Amino acid sequence: MEIQARKNKIENDVFEELCGAIGREYVFDNIEERECYSFDTTNVKSMPDLVITPHSTEQVSSALSIANKHNISICTRKAGIDLTGGAVPIKGGIALDLKNMNRIVELNASDLTISVEPGVVTNDLQREVEKFRLFYPPESGCKSFSTIGERVAECTGGMTGMKYGVTRDYVLALEIVLPDGSIINAGRKTLKSVAGYDLARFFVGSEGTLGVFTKITLKLLPMPEKTSTVISFFRNIDSALNTTDSILMKNHLNLRSLEFADKTCIDAVRDSTEVEIPSEAEALLLIDVDGNEKNVANDISRIDAICRENSTLKTLIAHTDEERNRLWDIRKLISHSPSKVDYKRFNEDLSVPRSKVRDVLKKVYELSNTYSLQVAAFGQIGEGHIHLNVLSNSADADDVSVHDLVSQILRDVESNGRTNISELAPHETEIMNDLKEMFDPKGIMNPGKIFGNS
Amino acid sequence: MEIQARKNKIENDVFEELCGAIGREYVFDNIEERECYSFDTTNVKSMPDLVITPHSTEQVSSALSIANKHNISICTRKAGIDLTGGAVPIKGGIALDLKNMNRIVELNASDLTISVEPGVVTNDLQREVEKFRLFYPPESGCKSFSTIGERVAECTGGMTGMKYGVTRDYVLALEIVLPDGSIINAGRKTLKSVAGYDLARFFVGSEGTLGVFTKITLKLLPMPEKTSTVISFFRNIDSALNTTDSILMKNHLNLRSLEFADKTCIDAVRDSTEVEIPSEAEALLLIDVDGNEKNVANDISRIDAICRENSTLKTLIAHTDEERNRLWDIRKLISHSPSKVDYKRFNEDLSVPRSKVRDVLKKVYELSNTYSLQVAAFGQIGEGHIHLNVLSNSADADDVSVHDLVSQILRDVESNGRTNISELAPHETEIMNDLKEMFDPKGIMNPGKIFGNS
Repeated sequence: MEIQARKNKIENDVFEELCGAIGREYVFDNIEERECYSFDTTNVKSMPDLVITPHSTEQVSSALSIANKHNISICTRKAGIDLTGGAVPIKGGIALDLKNMNRIVELNASDLTISVEPGVVTNDLQREVEKFRLFYPPESGCKSFSTIGERVAECTGGMTGMKYGVTRDYVLALEIVLPDGSIINAGRKTLKSVAGYDLARFFVGSEGTLGVFTKITLKLLPMPEKTSTVISFFRNIDSALNTTDSILMKNHLNLRSLEFADKTCIDAVRDSTEVEIPSEAEALLLIDVDGNEKNVANDISRIDAICRENSTLKTLIAHTDEERNRLWDIRKLISHSPSKVDYKRFNEDLSVPRSKVRDVLKKVYELSNTYSLQVAAFGQIGEGHIHLNVLSNSADADDVSVHDLVSQILRDVESNGRTNISELAPHETEIMNDLKEMFDPKGIMNPGKIFGNS
Repeated sequence: MEIQARKNKIENDVFEELCGAIGREYVFDNIEERECYSFDTTNVKSMPDLVITPHSTEQVSSALSIANKHNISICTRKAGIDLTGGAVPIKGGIALDLKNMNRIVELNASDLTISVEPGVVTNDLQREVEKFRLFYPPESGCKSFSTIGERVAECTGGMTGMKYGVTRDYVLALEIVLPDGSIINAGRKTLKSVAGYDLARFFVGSEGTLGVFTKITLKLLPMPEKTSTVISFFRNIDSALNTTDSILMKNHLNLRSLEFADKTCIDAVRDSTEVEIPSEAEALLLIDVDGNEKNVANDISRIDAICRENSTLKTLIAHTDEERNRLWDIRKLISHSPSKVDYKRFNEDLSVPRSKVRDVLKKVYELSNTYSLQVAAFGQIGEGHIHLNVLSNSADADDVSVHDLVSQILRDVESNGRTNISELAPHETEIMNDLKEMFDPKGIMNPGKIFGNS
């Protein structure tokens, strides 16, 4: 039966060609295997006709060249934790899983660079570089699942973005297989590399629509001597935001991380955490500071003082890894809790200028009242990055009103400079399409994503 | 006579069209004016047929559209301090000077962003943001001349690159006039912007070959509370490099700046500086540290100790601006002195992996002995960035042997990952050419630079 399903879409000769290139045992056509590649954490679902798991750049090159010749679309599979639907093969075709390309190719501790294959899991990379007292700064919430390849494809940011930037800032060079199977090297290994147009950074964030990364060279940093954490609870959002302003704008402290969460988030995790949270808390700030021992101690005492100036209800400071993890567990619980408590939810990430955070949050809560829908907001507000979870009140949720609320929020936020594809002017979209067509003339790479003639 | 010279190349109707678009008084066809746009600091020299100095995006758009229609090449003029020949109109045509587009459009202190026109001089931007206790980190040696537009076009690094990165890392958005006169916006104002492919960063460093930037939005940082400077002199290069290794690799100090200079540089400036330099000094390190007051004091005392551990001949520490400038004057003198002392010189910038600096320098001095030519080396060695000046011994310098030495150095350094256009594989060059052709099908923008069908 599964063979029938495959044969409908991909002819036997193509199947044989792929088996010849990659090995029969790495080409999967059974329903069970394909099913695993039909979804991610979004509700988008679509079945690939085949799954392939190559082991080398040459095999990826052969596979793409075969797919291109036969006009079969290829969707590069990330770890299935993608929240944007970017990993789902919405047009069928081949799901390309890079899990077998998970070697650390070269770690050069004195040059502060590492070259890896795309399937290396972020945490594994982190553990490897830690042996040399180095670290890879862009830290995500799902580092035990996400692979470096998908992080580069999505240009993920993370908790440490304010101080350390996003994935793009750490990509030095990429080996890329283009849709026609040709292999190019973009970027170079030195930190000040300049050779022609900046192709490496252009490919970062292209969501697998232009080619497949088969080797990634990243910049590393020396591991900070010390990292400490502060959590502080406030009676209202304004006090939390005033604290943020004072820390960043008046005192110019350079934080590793600054997370905010609102009352809905706090209430959702109150019973699950070991930390005793004041009952009247309506906002929290979770702050990481890193650097050398003395400098961290100095910054932490300034932050503590600023929280007091802004009438904090309670402040906890953690210096050991164990204590720090206890505080950070609150943040992790927040990402997961609203869905756990059986609410249906809708995620939307807002990115607004830092100065507009206060106005945007105010408007969000006003709208949530108007629509009688609960909204949970949290995120790196120091960067203007807000995760919104819209929670419906019952199992038979009114999806229409949820979507109305979200549209209304987006419309309202748009004037504050939110980033969204719809913001691109027609001529800009045309340029994106031209670029897509230049690299992928047949539109086989991750069709239906971002842009493209597909 | 000058009218004759112009008429040979650009027809009167085009001239009239340009005058209509920009205003007669901003279109120059006299020899004197055109002469000013025929050279930069390199030996490349070529005369434009016309010079235009528009005042607005719309005027730039009209000018490009006219040039494109008539197949006339356009060279965007930087400040003439370019060391790469990028500003010379080697094919004649129109020299576009953006000096009249020098407005600061918007400074948003709380969002840490500034939007400027391309003709704003780096120093003027710096002075403006300093009023709000902010700073624009990519610092160059020629900030009183260089404009933001040229810094974005060249993606310049600078003295602060090791801690703060290069221009690319600060460009949030660009308004770009494409060769056909169309105006696009690339990038967005928020720090985590993601909307389609990363066009803004793709255009950074494109040397005016794809379009003209007419508005540039940059990320700013809070001004550090304190900046202090250390200079330390060593008996030999190894001691200086051991100090560097210890500071960066063992102690993981995050320096604002780390400059190295060799004996030839030191000897060239010895008599011009107020600082008394030990006679046996064969290497110096010039270090900046910034951050909050206590942290800087802490780092400086660690650096001082590390220099002692490595048998420094003399270490000076500067805390006030005046003292700091006195030390930094040494670095400024180094950039200028070798040419002042009447040597003919040849500049070459090497960018090598950090770990290869020692080997590369050793090889450079060996070769300089073989060729009996003096070489001066200095630069941000923490980033693997070395400026080489080859000095010939007499006025009737043997250019052949200078070029032989430089080629030999480059060949030797190539295996260590130096960045150079010749490193691109044919297929990569082809892609660059395709990109150039997509944006500039007639090849009118800065022809003959980087890549292109021109």
